[in-house]
Amino acid sequence: MERVKVGLVGLGTVGRGFYELMSRNGSHFASKMGTSVEIARIAEIDTAAAQALVPRELLVDDYRSIVEQQDIKVVIELVGGTDVAYEIIQSAIEAGKHVITANKALLALRGAELFKLAREKQVYLKFEAAVGGGIPIIKIVRESLVGNRIDKILGILNGTSNYILTRMSEQQLPFAEALQQAQDAGFAEADPTLDVGGGDASHKISLLAAFAFGGWVDYRNILCEGITTVTPGEIEFAASAGFAIKLIASAILIDGKPSVTVFPALIPARHPLALVRDEVNAVFVECDYLGPALFLGRGAGANATASSVASDLGDLVQSLVLHDRRGGYPFDPSRALELYPEKEMEYRYFFHFITANRPGIWAAVTGCLADNGINIESVHQKWEDPSEPSDLYVLVDEAREEQARKALREVSAESGISEQSRFYRILPL
Amino acid sequence: MERVKVGLVGLGTVGRGFYELMSRNGSHFASKMGTSVEIARIAEIDTAAAQALVPRELLVDDYRSIVEQQDIKVVIELVGGTDVAYEIIQSAIEAGKHVITANKALLALRGAELFKLAREKQVYLKFEAAVGGGIPIIKIVRESLVGNRIDKILGILNGTSNYILTRMSEQQLPFAEALQQAQDAGFAEADPTLDVGGGDASHKISLLAAFAFGGWVDYRNILCEGITTVTPGEIEFAASAGFAIKLIASAILIDGKPSVTVFPALIPARHPLALVRDEVNAVFVECDYLGPALFLGRGAGANATASSVASDLGDLVQSLVLHDRRGGYPFDPSRALELYPEKEMEYRYFFHFITANRPGIWAAVTGCLADNGINIESVHQKWEDPSEPSDLYVLVDEAREEQARKALREVSAESGISEQSRFYRILPL
Repeated sequence: MERVKVGLVGLGTVGRGFYELMSRNGSHFASKMGTSVEIARIAEIDTAAAQALVPRELLVDDYRSIVEQQDIKVVIELVGGTDVAYEIIQSAIEAGKHVITANKALLALRGAELFKLAREKQVYLKFEAAVGGGIPIIKIVRESLVGNRIDKILGILNGTSNYILTRMSEQQLPFAEALQQAQDAGFAEADPTLDVGGGDASHKISLLAAFAFGGWVDYRNILCEGITTVTPGEIEFAASAGFAIKLIASAILIDGKPSVTVFPALIPARHPLALVRDEVNAVFVECDYLGPALFLGRGAGANATASSVASDLGDLVQSLVLHDRRGGYPFDPSRALELYPEKEMEYRYFFHFITANRPGIWAAVTGCLADNGINIESVHQKWEDPSEPSDLYVLVDEAREEQARKALREVSAESGISEQSRFYRILPL
Repeated sequence: MERVKVGLVGLGTVGRGFYELMSRNGSHFASKMGTSVEIARIAEIDTAAAQALVPRELLVDDYRSIVEQQDIKVVIELVGGTDVAYEIIQSAIEAGKHVITANKALLALRGAELFKLAREKQVYLKFEAAVGGGIPIIKIVRESLVGNRIDKILGILNGTSNYILTRMSEQQLPFAEALQQAQDAGFAEADPTLDVGGGDASHKISLLAAFAFGGWVDYRNILCEGITTVTPGEIEFAASAGFAIKLIASAILIDGKPSVTVFPALIPARHPLALVRDEVNAVFVECDYLGPALFLGRGAGANATASSVASDLGDLVQSLVLHDRRGGYPFDPSRALELYPEKEMEYRYFFHFITANRPGIWAAVTGCLADNGINIESVHQKWEDPSEPSDLYVLVDEAREEQARKALREVSAESGISEQSRFYRILPL
């Protein structure tokens, strides 16, 4: 049986998960692939802690000795971050090795450059674990959907945010308390900004959009809003109108251009995406031939991530056995995709105006909306204590993003209306 | 750009769908694959009808001219049935061509032989469209889960049955009326036996189990029951106890042996599988590393099936470009898997006894169950007209299949109890 030597960089949670997977299921993997894999070297800065986990003779404290080892054909980067991780991947590719990474932040930031380099060096840069955790969405988009025009991808791609929104919705908790629960349950970092601010989801949807639509999408150019403003009152009102609020990362083809966005969206409560609870991830795809399809699974965690790394490794073993050095991808990383203009997007909107309790407020709000050509569908006012600001919830008909923003600015400038007033978008499904 | 010549056999619904897909998305496919595909010849017996659909010069009325054409590298069999389809696939493989088929009935019946032949001839026999329609479950099981031990596969694999059960449940229709609706809506054949009797699902789960567990599973050896006995009353009672009734095809590893079954099962109403409506297919998978995952999509129809055929074609184009002639599969078609013994399976059961209305019936039922060591969880009797037989619904604790069958036989032999009495199994999820 052929034998492929692999170097593992990083023995944190995911690195340990992958090492354990290969220890436990390695022979099984070999019998399925017809080729066995040997983890020939492991680089970890914290060698003291690592010695308890893996054989001492495999350990090095510098990734460079892996990159320099001739017979290692695949480097698995699981250190995270965007500095050293970049050096590891870049130098491994330069050395002609295939690379596997779970690092969405790095790929979103410098993927265009790294994928281009990989193609030049005729190696593959694989990243199934970077998007959707254990859900094999990259393979599905790249291989299973090859006969389709992909019209729409809607994802629940950030487990932390979905966990928080689920707790807020099911237990009527305010954001801060639900965040605390997520932290206690191990589903949120001490600094949750990247998760709850939408950044993590924007990395993932940009990568997914790139491979779905064949060019590069810079996550810094997409509309990205997080869930920190969402309140239990908003969730309750949305539910009464038949919607759930979910942090949805989407990539939708409009007039041939991808509209790529991340925001807390209202989606129909009966849609399968609305039923995705807690830390689970999900990707809904709509294509011209496949039709609608939905994929659900664990979006993070050492084991699910390790499963995706192993899937990439299976593909690379195959590439090595077949001497496949095309390093090709069904997309051109040097070509930046022209996105559908943000201000032209059209949605139905859910406005939440925070207002004083006094005559004239309704007139000001409805007047401003009318002036901006926005048609009101329904209005609900929650009014508990007249001395406190009250919540005015307004669902409106389809409008252009530009109109909605202008209306919000104008209403918020009125006397007695808080600048904290905001809107959410309703996603058609 | 390299060019691969393909022969298409059969221009029925699926054949036309695939031809249309390649006409519409062929250049897209080529740019993704870096290789273009030419449908070089199409065989269809009904050439008169076919002439209206495809260029006349491509048409032949005998598949043999495709098999004999040297430069055709891939044969796509979309005629269905198990006679001519077998000849087409067998002769194409013998001629050294890769084959794509959507024919689950044929593969379930003679797959062991055909996969063995394909390996000998160093070609691939691909069948993504045969299981789960557009859901890429074969690729997921074979490639994405390569690092996992697959513990459990539960599928809603027959769209017709799921459509009927959904109508029965949502509109309180008897089976015959729901079947009629399915036929009117185009979701059931004039002769629905293969669908509603569980046969179609048994073909699919046997194939899935073979590739998940690495050996052959003969669908004729598995426990297979259809949905024809299910009544709206049973569905209603199940719902009141927190269950939905779905035709579930399952392959579950018990003590290292696969238990492969098809039957109408009670599953928890809150489980995502319970929410799969109408003709949609779904596959729930549980693995040691991936954890639980769920894949949903269209299980049939020309377009979804064409999408899966195109996915297989993408893989074969890659194999051809890389001169991959291993024809290997991560399973040994000559090795019949030893199934977990049917009578040893353990479930909770839902008994439905159809009884006369008179004293002593409850005593007979509960006595028989007790004699067989079966513990009653709850009992519900529906009693509308005392002169009519009444429905006695009994949920019982976990028991072995052997016990449950013996108890049913004994109760049904009692005076005043109908031989139509039956049970359903509750699947743990």
